[in-house]
Amino acid sequence: MKIVDGGLLVVEQSPGTESELQRLLHDISFATTNVTTERDCLSKIRTSKPDLILLSLDELLIDVHSLIREILKIDADLPIILVSVNGDEEKLVSLLEAGATDFLRFVGGQSALLKYVIEKNIQRHTIQEDHFAAEEKLEDLNYKLGENLKILERDQQAGFRVQRGMMPAAPMTFSKVTFDHRIFPSLILSGDFIDYFKLLDGRTVFYIADVSGHGASSAFVTVLLKSLSRRLQNDYESLGLKTPGSILVWLNRELLQCDLEQHVTMFLGILDCDESTLEYSNAAQFPAAILSGDDRAEFLEIGGLPLGLYQTPEYDSRSVSLPIQFTIVMFSDGVFEIMPQQTLKAKEEHLLSVVKCGKRNVDALAEQLGIESTRDVPDDIAVFTVAGFG
Amino acid sequence: MKIVDGGLLVVEQSPGTESELQRLLHDISFATTNVTTERDCLSKIRTSKPDLILLSLDELLIDVHSLIREILKIDADLPIILVSVNGDEEKLVSLLEAGATDFLRFVGGQSALLKYVIEKNIQRHTIQEDHFAAEEKLEDLNYKLGENLKILERDQQAGFRVQRGMMPAAPMTFSKVTFDHRIFPSLILSGDFIDYFKLLDGRTVFYIADVSGHGASSAFVTVLLKSLSRRLQNDYESLGLKTPGSILVWLNRELLQCDLEQHVTMFLGILDCDESTLEYSNAAQFPAAILSGDDRAEFLEIGGLPLGLYQTPEYDSRSVSLPIQFTIVMFSDGVFEIMPQQTLKAKEEHLLSVVKCGKRNVDALAEQLGIESTRDVPDDIAVFTVAGFG
Repeated sequence: MKIVDGGLLVVEQSPGTESELQRLLHDISFATTNVTTERDCLSKIRTSKPDLILLSLDELLIDVHSLIREILKIDADLPIILVSVNGDEEKLVSLLEAGATDFLRFVGGQSALLKYVIEKNIQRHTIQEDHFAAEEKLEDLNYKLGENLKILERDQQAGFRVQRGMMPAAPMTFSKVTFDHRIFPSLILSGDFIDYFKLLDGRTVFYIADVSGHGASSAFVTVLLKSLSRRLQNDYESLGLKTPGSILVWLNRELLQCDLEQHVTMFLGILDCDESTLEYSNAAQFPAAILSGDDRAEFLEIGGLPLGLYQTPEYDSRSVSLPIQFTIVMFSDGVFEIMPQQTLKAKEEHLLSVVKCGKRNVDALAEQLGIESTRDVPDDIAVFTVAGFG
Repeated sequence: MKIVDGGLLVVEQSPGTESELQRLLHDISFATTNVTTERDCLSKIRTSKPDLILLSLDELLIDVHSLIREILKIDADLPIILVSVNGDEEKLVSLLEAGATDFLRFVGGQSALLKYVIEKNIQRHTIQEDHFAAEEKLEDLNYKLGENLKILERDQQAGFRVQRGMMPAAPMTFSKVTFDHRIFPSLILSGDFIDYFKLLDGRTVFYIADVSGHGASSAFVTVLLKSLSRRLQNDYESLGLKTPGSILVWLNRELLQCDLEQHVTMFLGILDCDESTLEYSNAAQFPAAILSGDDRAEFLEIGGLPLGLYQTPEYDSRSVSLPIQFTIVMFSDGVFEIMPQQTLKAKEEHLLSVVKCGKRNVDALAEQLGIESTRDVPDDIAVFTVAGFG
C-alpha cells in the first residue's frame, strides 16, 4: 500500500471493491490510505502522519473505542471523523465522548458536505496548532525578555548597592546632631546624592545634590561627587576652603574639568556645634532647605547657579544661629512631581507647613507626602534631615 | 418573552405549539429563547448575548444567508448550528460556507446527539476565546516587559555614552604616536577603561584598566579612574609621581580610600618620544602588553598586585628602548573567554602570534580574534594599541 504523507486515513471494513465513501473521497480529490485493522491504522498514523482519520463505522468489526483511545495516545489532537449511514445515536455520542472530533450521517452521494466536514476539521486542527505555536512563541519571547530584563535589573541593583555604599550610614549621630536620609530612585540608579562628614577643624559638612537627569548617567556623576567629598575631607587643610561658598566654587571647577553632559544642584551647609551656627550656600538646589525650631520653620533661601555649567559663578555664604533644638529638612525637586498642589508656590508652602506641623523625621515626611506609597516616582526623590538636640 | 442571559437562541418558524426541537432542548435542560424573525434574532443577540444560535432550517421563511451575515456582523465568533430534518446538502454547505459553524441532521428524538453538538460548539467557542485571551495576555506582558527593558537599556546606553565620553578620542595621534582602542562590553556598561594623555613634562601616560566584575557597578569605578587621571594630569607637578610604579602606588591609595567592593588591574606606560623609551609597570593586568617591532613581538611581563586590595603593595617600573616603528598591543582578559584554545598558555601564545603576523591595528585584531563576530561576549573585552611610526 502506498504511503501518503499527510492526507486522509480511512478505516473501513474492506469491501474488496471500492466503497462509495472511497469513490467520493477520490472524486473530491483527497489523497487517502485505507486500512482495516487497528494495528495497521496505528502504524500508518506513526509513519505517514495523516491529517485526519475517517472511521466508517457501520461495517467495522474492530473495537472502535479502543482504536480511538490508541489513536489519541499517539496524537491527542488528531481529528477523527465518524461516518455512519444508520447513525446509531448512542454509539455516536459515546465515540464522540471518547475523543472523536466530529461525525457525519452519511446518507450517500453527499460529496460536498463530506468535503466540507473534512476540510473544516483539518482547518480547525490547523488553527488550534497555530494557536499553540503562537502561544509557545510568545511564552518563549516573554521568557527571553524577562531574562534580559533580570540581567539588566540585577546589574543596576548591583550598581545601586555600590551607590548606596558611597553614601554615609543613616541615621548617624555626631556632636549631638543626627543625620538621616532616604533616596527613592525613579529607576534603580539615582542622580540624587547626599553626604556628610567631619572636617579636620571639628565642623561638619553636609550636602544634598541633584544631578540633572536620572538613572545610570546621573549616577556616574554622584561617583565624582563622592570622590570630591573625599578630597575635601582629606585635603581640607591644603585646599584652604573654609566657607560653603568657596567649597561650591571649587566643586564647580572640578566638575567643569570633567566635561559632563550633566550639571549638579547642591545645598551645602557647615555646622559649627560649638558656636551653634549653620553656614550655608546653595548652587540652585530647589526646594531650599527648611530650618525649623520649636516654634518656626523657614526656607533658607539663597541664590546661586548650578555646578558644572559656568566658568566663574559666585556663591554667597550665609550664617544663621541655631536654636538648641533644630531640624534642617531638605528635599530634591523630585518631590514636587508627586505633590497634588497645582503651583510650585503652593507645593513649597505645603512642604513648609508639613515641617511646621512637626513632621521632621525622614520616614514621617516620606509618609506624610505620599512618597512612600507612590509606585514609579517620575524623578528621584531624596529626603534628608539634620537634627540637633542640644 | 423572558430574556435569558447566555443560553441558546433558537430561530424557528413558530409552530404555535412547542416544537419537538424546543421540547428536546427543554428536556436536556438548556435555557432557550425562541425567535422567528431576523429583527428579533439580532435584537436578542445584542441584548441577551446568547452562547449559541440554533437555526431550525426546514420551516424558516426568512433569508437565512442574510441572517447569518448579520449575526456575524454583531459577533464574528458566535457559534451557529444548523438543524435540519430533510438536510438539503447544497443548502447546508452554502450556509456553512456563509459562516454557520456546525449542522445536525435532526431525524427526531436524538436528544443525546443534540446535546453533544450544542455543548461541543459552546466548548469550542470558549476554548477559542480562551486562546485569544491567553494570547492577548501574553502580548500585553510582552509589551510591558519590552517597555521596561527599553527603559533600562536606554538608561544604560545613556550611561554608556557618558562612559565613552570619559575615554579619549580614538584614534588620536600626538608626537608621532597613534593611540587607538575599542571596548566590547558584555552588558552595556563596562568595567574596562582606557586613558592616555600628555604630562606637563612632555611624556605621554597611557593605561588599560579592568575593574573586577562588569556592568554598572564596575562602570562606577571607571568614573573614579577618570577623575584620578585628571588629577594626575592637572596636579602632576605637585603629586611628584615620575615613574609608572609610583603612579600605581598613588592610584592604589586613592582607590583604597573609596572602600570599593571592586579591585582594578592596570597596565600603565609612560612614553618618552624624545628618548624613544617606554617605562611601564603592571598591577596584575593580564594578558601582559605585547611590544612588537619589525621582526619581533614579546610580552612586557612584570609582576604586581591589583589596585584597591592591599595597603602597601610595591610596583616595579621597567624601561625598554623602542624601535623607530613599534606597536604596543593590549587586551583585557575578557578576550580569553572567547578564544578556542584550551589553555591560558595557548591563548597567550596565540595572541602573540597574531601580533607577530602583523595584525597590529584594533579592527584587524578584533576581526582576527573573532571579537567582532561574537554576539554576547561573556566579559568586557578591550583592545588598545599604541603605535609609533618614527
